[in-house]
Amino acid sequence: MNTINGTIQNRYTQPELLGSHIGSLVTLSGSIYKIRSMSGFAFVILRTRRALVQCIYSPQYCPFPLEELVEETCVVITGEVVAEERSRTGYELQLRSIQVLSTPTEVLPVVINNKQMNASIDTLLDYRPITLRNEKERAIFRIQEGICRGFRDFLSSQSFTEIHSPKIVYAGAEGGANIFKLDYFGGNAFLAQSPQFYKQMMVGVYERVYEIAPVFRAEKHDTSRHLNEYTSVDFEMGYIESFEDIMAMETAMLRHTLHFLEENYAYELSLHKVSLPEVTSIPAIPFYEAKQMISDHYHREIKDMEDFEPEEEKLLYEIVKQRTGSEFVFVTHYPSRKRPFYAMEDPSNREVTLSFDLLFRGLEITTGGQRIHQYEEQLRKMHNLGMHPEEFNSYLMIHKYGMPPHGGLGLGLERFTSRLLEQNNVRYSCLFPRDINRLTP
Amino acid sequence: MNTINGTIQNRYTQPELLGSHIGSLVTLSGSIYKIRSMSGFAFVILRTRRALVQCIYSPQYCPFPLEELVEETCVVITGEVVAEERSRTGYELQLRSIQVLSTPTEVLPVVINNKQMNASIDTLLDYRPITLRNEKERAIFRIQEGICRGFRDFLSSQSFTEIHSPKIVYAGAEGGANIFKLDYFGGNAFLAQSPQFYKQMMVGVYERVYEIAPVFRAEKHDTSRHLNEYTSVDFEMGYIESFEDIMAMETAMLRHTLHFLEENYAYELSLHKVSLPEVTSIPAIPFYEAKQMISDHYHREIKDMEDFEPEEEKLLYEIVKQRTGSEFVFVTHYPSRKRPFYAMEDPSNREVTLSFDLLFRGLEITTGGQRIHQYEEQLRKMHNLGMHPEEFNSYLMIHKYGMPPHGGLGLGLERFTSRLLEQNNVRYSCLFPRDINRLTP
Repeated sequence: MNTINGTIQNRYTQPELLGSHIGSLVTLSGSIYKIRSMSGFAFVILRTRRALVQCIYSPQYCPFPLEELVEETCVVITGEVVAEERSRTGYELQLRSIQVLSTPTEVLPVVINNKQMNASIDTLLDYRPITLRNEKERAIFRIQEGICRGFRDFLSSQSFTEIHSPKIVYAGAEGGANIFKLDYFGGNAFLAQSPQFYKQMMVGVYERVYEIAPVFRAEKHDTSRHLNEYTSVDFEMGYIESFEDIMAMETAMLRHTLHFLEENYAYELSLHKVSLPEVTSIPAIPFYEAKQMISDHYHREIKDMEDFEPEEEKLLYEIVKQRTGSEFVFVTHYPSRKRPFYAMEDPSNREVTLSFDLLFRGLEITTGGQRIHQYEEQLRKMHNLGMHPEEFNSYLMIHKYGMPPHGGLGLGLERFTSRLLEQNNVRYSCLFPRDINRLTP
Repeated sequence: MNTINGTIQNRYTQPELLGSHIGSLVTLSGSIYKIRSMSGFAFVILRTRRALVQCIYSPQYCPFPLEELVEETCVVITGEVVAEERSRTGYELQLRSIQVLSTPTEVLPVVINNKQMNASIDTLLDYRPITLRNEKERAIFRIQEGICRGFRDFLSSQSFTEIHSPKIVYAGAEGGANIFKLDYFGGNAFLAQSPQFYKQMMVGVYERVYEIAPVFRAEKHDTSRHLNEYTSVDFEMGYIESFEDIMAMETAMLRHTLHFLEENYAYELSLHKVSLPEVTSIPAIPFYEAKQMISDHYHREIKDMEDFEPEEEKLLYEIVKQRTGSEFVFVTHYPSRKRPFYAMEDPSNREVTLSFDLLFRGLEITTGGQRIHQYEEQLRKMHNLGMHPEEFNSYLMIHKYGMPPHGGLGLGLERFTSRLLEQNNVRYSCLFPRDINRLTP
């Protein structure tokens, strides 16, 4: 009987550690990213899992016919690490041998090995499996990984429990028509617009929970801010004294995460020249006040008294940035008519809710708030809205059988990443975006 | 302008730290889990986010009418921590005050505060939002959280990058009819059966990637092993020398994760009396050999030469356990006809693939293997299977434009949890299971 003992073969040197191997022979795996022939030698750039490694090919040291080496060939190379001041890393590799593992069968349809992809967004997305191989493109999703790790790290330290809630659901949590419907063994089911009901249920179990998972919105908008499937970072917490507790938790989470990125993803941040925002304190402005502030400052007419236009979000950012230096701003107390049936109204003014959005560099990245926890109050609100509480029996169990004051939020991972990198389209921060016109790759 | 500075208010003592507060007054939040009236005093068990806390109510110390306190009331309590040998924790709380935050409006329809839930699986699942409040039930999903944390911790240490692939897809990766279909803005789309295509694409980008996310299978089986939506732990790695590299990585991952659980989730493991399996080395047996072994040992006729019956998986476990002590067993070299089109065939015998399943305590929890990375080979196999390669253009980009030898696996999170806890139905380890008969809660 053969056995697997779980010893991981480290056949190749970790590219991150090359700097400590100067003078030694090392073996690396990777793809040929770029070849630049000079007179008598060539620069060969190897793309490893995180870094690019500059190699020098000279026929006298490396008995391999260079003309047979094409970009995107997968190889194992051996070479000597030599100090080289002119290299960005302070060293380069003098190639000794090249072993080809696989060769592309066609020339790439797009150039992927320049510093910056020079392609339309459609080309970028159509050829995603290969355009993501660009050094700068792939760095986006390393940063996104770092954001998730930072969030989890923080939430775990604050005693949040991670959950996995179902994505095939019996009812939508956010209302409205923007919900995908599917056939479920001859009956109807939907794709979850958010884990709202489930995370609230789980507050009754663990007090504090979070989930990072896909959500689905059948919105027909084709804008630079909308995706039909995105990754939502949700948390929900019980025993709050006010909805400001939730905003404080998010502020601390963002602060932690930005530090985490700085410490662990400096290389990727530098590729994108990211200037990390300071999160010391975040201004919080009630919705109507914010509307008025924008109108006063820019002498704009207020067209929609119950919602922001995208342009207004940008203008508010400008004002707040100028007055306080903050690139984040909480807008609080959204009109009750614009919030879902589970939103808690402000007892001192039932026209508004104890809710908030967080705008980051002019884009809404979070919606959150306190939820109704009393059964009678929730029933009353559903009746007022013409809803049928019996359709929500399992959700209403939590209100019926005891729930603490609680609230939470959802943050759009792609939007946050995209604003951090100051992109003009959220699709750049989604690996394989889904929109009304795009279902591939 | 109001500002949120991100200071988290720690209004309540962390229940985990009560042991270090003996002799002090503390304030805790939580739910009244159980009240046991004695003569002149009462035991009041508070359920906090992780632990149960035994409190003593005596009217002379605590001016609160006990008869008004019902189970599942959400409260903030104050009390003195006193040493008490007979308490499991070594201390208890002498109640001084009770502040009610919210009260259930109805008596619970099921008893949830016994050591063990005494309810049918249907009742357990129908009332999931409240039955999960049972101490032992909720521990299951803390352990599940621990498994995910352990996996991530390990994969991150091995330079895997976390990805988020789309769940709404243009084509199924696993073939067959068990795929959910949905209307996507007037066209057809499907729910991903696995992140297979995407994780392979991302191997071309980062070499090593992983994802923990929902997958969807429209299987009509109503068994104790099947869920129509489950959480799949997927990883995929490039530059492998053989598919044994993948098994070695999984073995190391399991070992790491079981240690992680032992260190961080001892309380929850003890509630379930979990005996953690040792992972020193895992036997690996070729499929046909395993079939023969079972047949020989139990004098059973082999009915299906190309697949295991569930009963055979259990019998194989018994044999392996007895002969080697291992509760895990890899079965390798599955018949080519039973594996998907991307599976790499064994060059020395094209009837079988370089693939494996991992069985844990008699249940398949993982399927993995090496994938085809050469374009021509993949095309040939698709043609042989009567497939239309042009429907998979974006997937085939990776083969066309250079891919290293690679492979990976998918592990069912609920199945793994369920076998770890020696449950007889995988539904016990799924927060809100979806099956052919269940779409709620």
